[in-house]
Amino acid sequence: MRVEIWSDINCPWCYIGKARFDRALERFPHREAVEVVHRSFELDPRSPREARPVVPLIAAKYGLGLEQAEAAEQRIADNAEAEGLAYLRSGRDAANSFDMHRLLHFAAEHGRQAELLDALYRANFAEERSAFAPGRLAELAVEAGLDGAEAARVLADPDAYAQAVREDEATASAMGATGVPFFVLDRRLGVSGAQPTETFAAALEQAWESRPVFPLVKVGGDAGAADSGEVGGPDGCAVPRH
Amino acid sequence: MRVEIWSDINCPWCYIGKARFDRALERFPHREAVEVVHRSFELDPRSPREARPVVPLIAAKYGLGLEQAEAAEQRIADNAEAEGLAYLRSGRDAANSFDMHRLLHFAAEHGRQAELLDALYRANFAEERSAFAPGRLAELAVEAGLDGAEAARVLADPDAYAQAVREDEATASAMGATGVPFFVLDRRLGVSGAQPTETFAAALEQAWESRPVFPLVKVGGDAGAADSGEVGGPDGCAVPRH
Repeated sequence: MRVEIWSDINCPWCYIGKARFDRALERFPHREAVEVVHRSFELDPRSPREARPVVPLIAAKYGLGLEQAEAAEQRIADNAEAEGLAYLRSGRDAANSFDMHRLLHFAAEHGRQAELLDALYRANFAEERSAFAPGRLAELAVEAGLDGAEAARVLADPDAYAQAVREDEATASAMGATGVPFFVLDRRLGVSGAQPTETFAAALEQAWESRPVFPLVKVGGDAGAADSGEVGGPDGCAVPRH
Repeated sequence: MRVEIWSDINCPWCYIGKARFDRALERFPHREAVEVVHRSFELDPRSPREARPVVPLIAAKYGLGLEQAEAAEQRIADNAEAEGLAYLRSGRDAANSFDMHRLLHFAAEHGRQAELLDALYRANFAEERSAFAPGRLAELAVEAGLDGAEAARVLADPDAYAQAVREDEATASAMGATGVPFFVLDRRLGVSGAQPTETFAAALEQAWESRPVFPLVKVGGDAGAADSGEVGGPDGCAVPRH
């Protein structure tokens, strides 16, 4: 079973939602059979590369005063802490996340995507130093177990893994996602938002119970044990009868 | 879209079937959106680790005389060459493939599964030197771009990735596979055997046309733009309205 999670690193509800999902997954009896994949989603592809303080950004995005925006940020922090997540209550910033998503695809190819995603969330939501500080992404790549020089090359080449990011975004769009986090189980069930852990647990259970294990729709004929040289149906190697 | 291919490295029809599938994929207009995953399937988990000549094995497996078995092997070679594949017409051997499958899972974690699979097929079907010769797997890992020392550690530890191999086999069994190659498209369509390229092309087309892009079955409520601090539905980060 495969769970794809569309997220943006700049989205605090992705950080919180992932923790809630992870808790549901921990308790799921078939968790060993579940593969989790990060998918890219940029909330604002046009945002600049230079980091800016987050409270004025929230105010501008939702048409709030600075005080209301500050209160909203504090409520998000409360939610994060309720999930046991560290959260930097003041001084957070945000910037364009495209390079982070490119780096996550690079990490996936090296079996380090989950580690890098955790490192990015921690750097962006829990650390004093900005995740967008120069050189910080290459450092986080190393902390996630990746080769620093290779990661630096990926970061220096804006085309590297750019297509993979765009494809994830096109798929999310085709599936009707207009926000994140967006969870898709086996391309059949969707969960939108940082739902409670119980909802994720129910979705995992429902996906498991409804998984189409057999029969698949069959394309083409049956494979015979035709490696014996018999003329017949399409060719395959059969399990020997002991 | 994801295509999972259950194969055994000892199965010549897997070698041939993969070439036919690859040709269909090359011509598929949406090939960039297709992810191919190798899944483990051991035709004979009880076969010994020591390599034995393949023709007597074919004879024993299918109750043939040695001459018939030799003729069967030559017909397989004809099929392979018709696909443009190199094939060692005499002197092929076979042995237990469990370590190969474990190594393929290790390779997947490092983004090198496709490369290792090609190297294993080439070593087993096209090269004079046995793929089962001591040290050969570690060499092939390096040829596939993996770290030799890490690969050697995986090979030396019989538990490494053993669970991943068993899980693939349990999934194949749950899906009703009794032989390989066994192709599964998005866990919805199945193609059994080394079918003609046209059949794979039709399966890719059918899977693409029938992909459930929208709507997914929704679990839980809608995510609102609740990062503004509004009380409401489950929390998510919305795309800003520019």
